[in-house]
Amino acid sequence: MTTKSREIRLAARPHGEPKPQDFALAQVELEEPAAGEVLVKNLCFSVDPYMRGRMNEGKSYVPPFVIGAALEGAAVGRVAASNQSALPVGALVCSTFGWREAFVAPAATLRVLDPTLAPPSAFLGLFGVTGLTAWVGLWKVARLLPAETVFVSGGAGAVGSAVCQLARLRGSKVIASAGSDAKVVMLRDQFGADYAFNYNDGDPLQHLHEAAPEGIDVYFDNTAGPQLEAALSALKPRGRIAMCGAIAGYNTPIAGPRNLAIVIGKRLRIEGFIVSDHIGDFPEFFAEVGPALKSGKLQSHETVIEGIENAPAAFSSLLRSGDSHTGKMVIHLS
Amino acid sequence: MTTKSREIRLAARPHGEPKPQDFALAQVELEEPAAGEVLVKNLCFSVDPYMRGRMNEGKSYVPPFVIGAALEGAAVGRVAASNQSALPVGALVCSTFGWREAFVAPAATLRVLDPTLAPPSAFLGLFGVTGLTAWVGLWKVARLLPAETVFVSGGAGAVGSAVCQLARLRGSKVIASAGSDAKVVMLRDQFGADYAFNYNDGDPLQHLHEAAPEGIDVYFDNTAGPQLEAALSALKPRGRIAMCGAIAGYNTPIAGPRNLAIVIGKRLRIEGFIVSDHIGDFPEFFAEVGPALKSGKLQSHETVIEGIENAPAAFSSLLRSGDSHTGKMVIHLS
Repeated sequence: MTTKSREIRLAARPHGEPKPQDFALAQVELEEPAAGEVLVKNLCFSVDPYMRGRMNEGKSYVPPFVIGAALEGAAVGRVAASNQSALPVGALVCSTFGWREAFVAPAATLRVLDPTLAPPSAFLGLFGVTGLTAWVGLWKVARLLPAETVFVSGGAGAVGSAVCQLARLRGSKVIASAGSDAKVVMLRDQFGADYAFNYNDGDPLQHLHEAAPEGIDVYFDNTAGPQLEAALSALKPRGRIAMCGAIAGYNTPIAGPRNLAIVIGKRLRIEGFIVSDHIGDFPEFFAEVGPALKSGKLQSHETVIEGIENAPAAFSSLLRSGDSHTGKMVIHLS
Repeated sequence: MTTKSREIRLAARPHGEPKPQDFALAQVELEEPAAGEVLVKNLCFSVDPYMRGRMNEGKSYVPPFVIGAALEGAAVGRVAASNQSALPVGALVCSTFGWREAFVAPAATLRVLDPTLAPPSAFLGLFGVTGLTAWVGLWKVARLLPAETVFVSGGAGAVGSAVCQLARLRGSKVIASAGSDAKVVMLRDQFGADYAFNYNDGDPLQHLHEAAPEGIDVYFDNTAGPQLEAALSALKPRGRIAMCGAIAGYNTPIAGPRNLAIVIGKRLRIEGFIVSDHIGDFPEFFAEVGPALKSGKLQSHETVIEGIENAPAAFSSLLRSGDSHTGKMVIHLS
């Protein structure tokens, strides 16, 4: 007996902003799981800005997506058939097989989730790799201290909203930016930012001076571009930049910061990181984030889009400044 | 009895390349040293690229030079009259009073030098703050390992030639650039570079690929500009950049590196430093560099200019790419 599953494939490498014809919806027939394998029906998967880089040709820290193959990424689903006794039908699992309704894979490639800790989609967001990204960037890379001030760009996005909340949870002052006035309201009212601004409205450096006249200690960079340049100017001596993303340059090349030499006189440290190097920090992360999520001190913010056929448009909107999505962009499958 | 001394003052803040009229030669009469003071007659002083930044208005990590006052910087001289028994006539001392033939100052503001260790001018170069700058950048900031490869821009300059030699001394592979073919020959024949290139001749990234097809581990940045961009591309994963200088942008603004986002995927670390934060490392530095200097394994390279009246032109030439100076630019006073 086979199972039908639909999946989204990369049809062509996008030039600039991804277009509908760069993607293709296809249907496949899945065989029954062989020994050690399970059949998983996905409940949801996420679309993320970093995937834009994998759509290009050429070497990066992860291999490029293959044209004609389904797009990969984090997904949460339930085991629907099992040929591995340790992973029974009904178990909640996280995979990296991405944009598909169902798949068959060795049980050993899946991470088993505890469904009592959080709703399934939260394991894609604040309680998953997204939250860990924020946590690692803040505490392990930038080494933000409770008495310090952090500025995060893309503050209303998946990682950004986690940065705001986690920094606030430990007592830091949080400045956050987003690309629309509606998101600025959310940053203040829901994500806990002490000061929020629309980076399309006025000079980012003026906003930073107003928010923190004494300067900032840490910049959590999700965007690069003009906000990085402003942050370099606003950082105090011995400030740190955790470079997590550069969304301003994903579709089109951008200029580098003209004031980079400031790094010398202010003894700044700029450090890039990739969350997959830090998967070993999950236990420490869960210990802090789990109780705060259960008590309601932290919330996993999501924009939910229904149906796999709508994933390409949801992905493209992620990369557009000022679009209305906030938090993690989750594709829900019914 | 007074002593005559000539000094070079800042007459005007330079715009772009410093011009002769931005400087003024003046003569002063020095009083006899008061209690605790000494009169020092300088043997030599240095002119350094970082001084260009202090000629501008505005806050930096050191205060700007004052218009109408003598320029400051490192100088080595002998005590000619003493009103402090602990510092007798004849003692060799290092000061930060700069571009003057003689001065009177409290003995406590001077660093006493051991004349048996090296010739006086070497305390301005490899055996002084210049050498310490290279040493700190390599070992404390970039944490270069003996089996690794380092690229240094401005390799024929004061700090650059020290970087080449110190890295080679511990066994690292050294790639160095300079602005003329004559300097490239010196880099290979005298400063110990394994591979040297003229950055005005061809694409720096092509040179780096040829010198180290497997990539570089550390970039010691004295220039910023296109060489920084090339280094970002050539760095291996987990590579480090010690940002020490940005001479390409001292006279005129330059563009930032367009490929800075590479820092994320390659997990690079960029860190700026100022040697004055690391004066406490002098004993450890002397312990390594002293014996190597005595045995001839290290050499303090200098371009010596005779006479204080020639200091402004010597300084301006420092900032010109392709000029003929190499090593430390020392003004000798007779």
